[in-house]
Amino acid sequence: MSLFTDLQHLLGEHYVQSSQQVVERLTDRHRRYKGNVVAAVRPANTSEVAAVVRLCGQYAIPIVVQGGNTGLMGAATPDESGRSVLLLLDRLDRIRAIDTHNDTMTVEAGCILQNVQNTAQQAGRLFPLSLASEGSCTIGGNLGTNAGGNAVLRFGNARELTLGLEVVTAEGEVWEGLSGLRKDNTGYDLRNLYIGSEGTLGIITAATLKLYPLPNAQCTAFVAFDRLSQAVNFLSFTREAFDASLTAFELMSGPCLSLLASKLPDASQPFKTIEHAWYALIEISGHQSEADLKSLFEKVLFNALTEQSVADVLIAQSGAQREALWHLRESLSEAQARDGANAKHDISVPISRVVEFVERTDALLQQRFPGVRHFTFGHLGDGNLHYNVASPKGQSSEDFLANYAQVSAVVHDTAHALGGSISAEHGIGQRKRELMSRYKSAVELDLMQRIKHALDPHGLLNPGKVLPAKEAL
Amino acid sequence: MSLFTDLQHLLGEHYVQSSQQVVERLTDRHRRYKGNVVAAVRPANTSEVAAVVRLCGQYAIPIVVQGGNTGLMGAATPDESGRSVLLLLDRLDRIRAIDTHNDTMTVEAGCILQNVQNTAQQAGRLFPLSLASEGSCTIGGNLGTNAGGNAVLRFGNARELTLGLEVVTAEGEVWEGLSGLRKDNTGYDLRNLYIGSEGTLGIITAATLKLYPLPNAQCTAFVAFDRLSQAVNFLSFTREAFDASLTAFELMSGPCLSLLASKLPDASQPFKTIEHAWYALIEISGHQSEADLKSLFEKVLFNALTEQSVADVLIAQSGAQREALWHLRESLSEAQARDGANAKHDISVPISRVVEFVERTDALLQQRFPGVRHFTFGHLGDGNLHYNVASPKGQSSEDFLANYAQVSAVVHDTAHALGGSISAEHGIGQRKRELMSRYKSAVELDLMQRIKHALDPHGLLNPGKVLPAKEAL
Repeated sequence: MSLFTDLQHLLGEHYVQSSQQVVERLTDRHRRYKGNVVAAVRPANTSEVAAVVRLCGQYAIPIVVQGGNTGLMGAATPDESGRSVLLLLDRLDRIRAIDTHNDTMTVEAGCILQNVQNTAQQAGRLFPLSLASEGSCTIGGNLGTNAGGNAVLRFGNARELTLGLEVVTAEGEVWEGLSGLRKDNTGYDLRNLYIGSEGTLGIITAATLKLYPLPNAQCTAFVAFDRLSQAVNFLSFTREAFDASLTAFELMSGPCLSLLASKLPDASQPFKTIEHAWYALIEISGHQSEADLKSLFEKVLFNALTEQSVADVLIAQSGAQREALWHLRESLSEAQARDGANAKHDISVPISRVVEFVERTDALLQQRFPGVRHFTFGHLGDGNLHYNVASPKGQSSEDFLANYAQVSAVVHDTAHALGGSISAEHGIGQRKRELMSRYKSAVELDLMQRIKHALDPHGLLNPGKVLPAKEAL
Repeated sequence: MSLFTDLQHLLGEHYVQSSQQVVERLTDRHRRYKGNVVAAVRPANTSEVAAVVRLCGQYAIPIVVQGGNTGLMGAATPDESGRSVLLLLDRLDRIRAIDTHNDTMTVEAGCILQNVQNTAQQAGRLFPLSLASEGSCTIGGNLGTNAGGNAVLRFGNARELTLGLEVVTAEGEVWEGLSGLRKDNTGYDLRNLYIGSEGTLGIITAATLKLYPLPNAQCTAFVAFDRLSQAVNFLSFTREAFDASLTAFELMSGPCLSLLASKLPDASQPFKTIEHAWYALIEISGHQSEADLKSLFEKVLFNALTEQSVADVLIAQSGAQREALWHLRESLSEAQARDGANAKHDISVPISRVVEFVERTDALLQQRFPGVRHFTFGHLGDGNLHYNVASPKGQSSEDFLANYAQVSAVVHDTAHALGGSISAEHGIGQRKRELMSRYKSAVELDLMQRIKHALDPHGLLNPGKVLPAKEAL
């Protein structure tokens, strides 16, 4: 008997595949990493997942869990040893329950995020987690990385949207933690420990999620600023003016808009000319009537314009105009891809340090790599910037990216010095793993290593991810 | 040298006290538990806390941390052995920073909750955590128990209000986790593990808290219902109608109001007669003008009354009327105390199971203890009921409370059977410790024990709290 045939007996031959059959699953979205496995398995349900984990334990074989394979840090890509089993959860795709009185739904890990959103909407509820890959990422992957996205400003990250979990432990036991409770102070917070652990502490097989009322109306605007500090001040101002109704404050620089205009000329631009330094897509959503919400929105933005706290404003006058503004925001990655590869960063700093971060990092990079082009955008309301750096005019992307590590060191060092994070929403995976030793204290790394050892004593769950190699400590 | 003199050398004689000097600190608020200690220490700052922990570690002496000593589960009361050191954090009472652009403040663990609220308010911000003991409880204790309170419906528990922590570990090292970041996906969630761990995993010495805009206006009403199901339906309705503006939905039964009328006749009652089965205090808060908010509130409540989805409504017409309604809500414990001791419970169930929980538990208790009086109230918006049971007319409290454990078993069994929690917001401490074995799965307890062992390998942090004795497993 071998592990492969044991797995076939357990799951049925059809659900145990060889490396060759799942080639596209062995590399990440950006094809940075490529791995190999003993087998890829597709269990039908939680007890089959648990049985797979127990079987792999007997063979001392590592398990790499993968959802929609949309992650950016290589967390779901196995290593090259070919020793691991790849665990695919696409068959765990049931909506187990929806409870509109409790405003919760219980879904299996393999559900596509968009299906979760749609099911909630059909029940007259909002599930607010929303990100660019929502059509293919799974809720299990979202929880594994504590996904952020476009609605964090109002609703929080994946962690804040989750009440309960079902988890298969490293021993192949099932923790039945599918609570739909908003208050439960009985012992340690296992839920939040598993969320964001990228498959290294246990395997999330289902979750009970929070639902919200569907907003009655939304208003969207594109706002221009002459200085970044103006945008930060305006964020504070809109938080006070709109409170929980403020659901998006998405920043992008003038160069981002110019790049969109040149690389995706079909996307309609909000303003005739791109003459300001910074722009933001601002949205409010509420329970008020559309007329009431719109009148409030227009009043606040009109006052801001006359008081010159913003440089220009365009308010979407139709659903189609709103879609066009969001389309611009969501096309930024595509526009950059057409311009050539660039050095990408997903940092956060306290909102009060955003201006300092951008000014200092821009200056340091211009000093060391004169002429580099900055394409800075992100979720300003969360202090989260996608701070991307492209080659100077005349230099090829490839030549420039030979300096990727040095560029990133400048960006990450500056974020860190300002109390920031080197990974705001994308996680650590294998890509930023060794950076953990540089930016985390020995005390913090030691606490994390102890937790890892406590919950996965044989180190079989997604090894080589999140925590740096022990030698690096 | 002894531990006592070593502690005196470390902190100064004045800050090391004997048992006799801190007698009131050795018993809990309800005087259920009484303990003894080697010494009580009052370090001046985080590094002194760390030094105390290291010193106690050398002597293998347990440490019990205590904030305002307002907890209800005996979590902050040392055991009777007299072996422990009591760690008082009242000298760690600085507001370290307030950042209105980032909407955060960093405070030390010994700060009184009300001082934290007031400091936020002086800066034009809201720190929403609010509970009856806010004048004497400390933020460290609030975080240690993941406190809930009156604003959870809108803002979440203490956990959701915290971005970063500073923690002294069991080894007396300091984890510097005082992040003011809303997004930071770099490794495991230590923050939420320490929050709610009741001093058993580490000692929280400071926290970075979230702030919110101060609401511009508030509207408050007292609403009557003929059936509990009507209240639950109305909660759903108000969540949809008011969304994030709904900031309180506090339920109390008719018998609770009657008890208030008889025990605290000076407290003004909202209605002339108490003729309905259930009542709720409902509040909305918002950024709108007072006139706009009030007109919306009145419209919704007037419609509800005409459609008979509520039985009666009184809208507070002044600040004084609002205060009077909240005063009623906050006087419930006092009214019950004047009636005699009763069997108290702090349970939660999914909101969709609240009616079933109350009907089933009431019936079971009447069956087994005919004539018991039910005083049920709580945070309906969180599914959290304070389900209190008093002696039948004619029986003394003392005689009735001889059955406390049997009464509680009925209440907890029913909550558990409906997917609920036996401690919604008060924690476990020593009071509910052995119930953990009854209501938690072996898998979950084992995971918690492993975490405890990983972070406090010598078991010196608040032993005998939260987790059941190993033998009970």
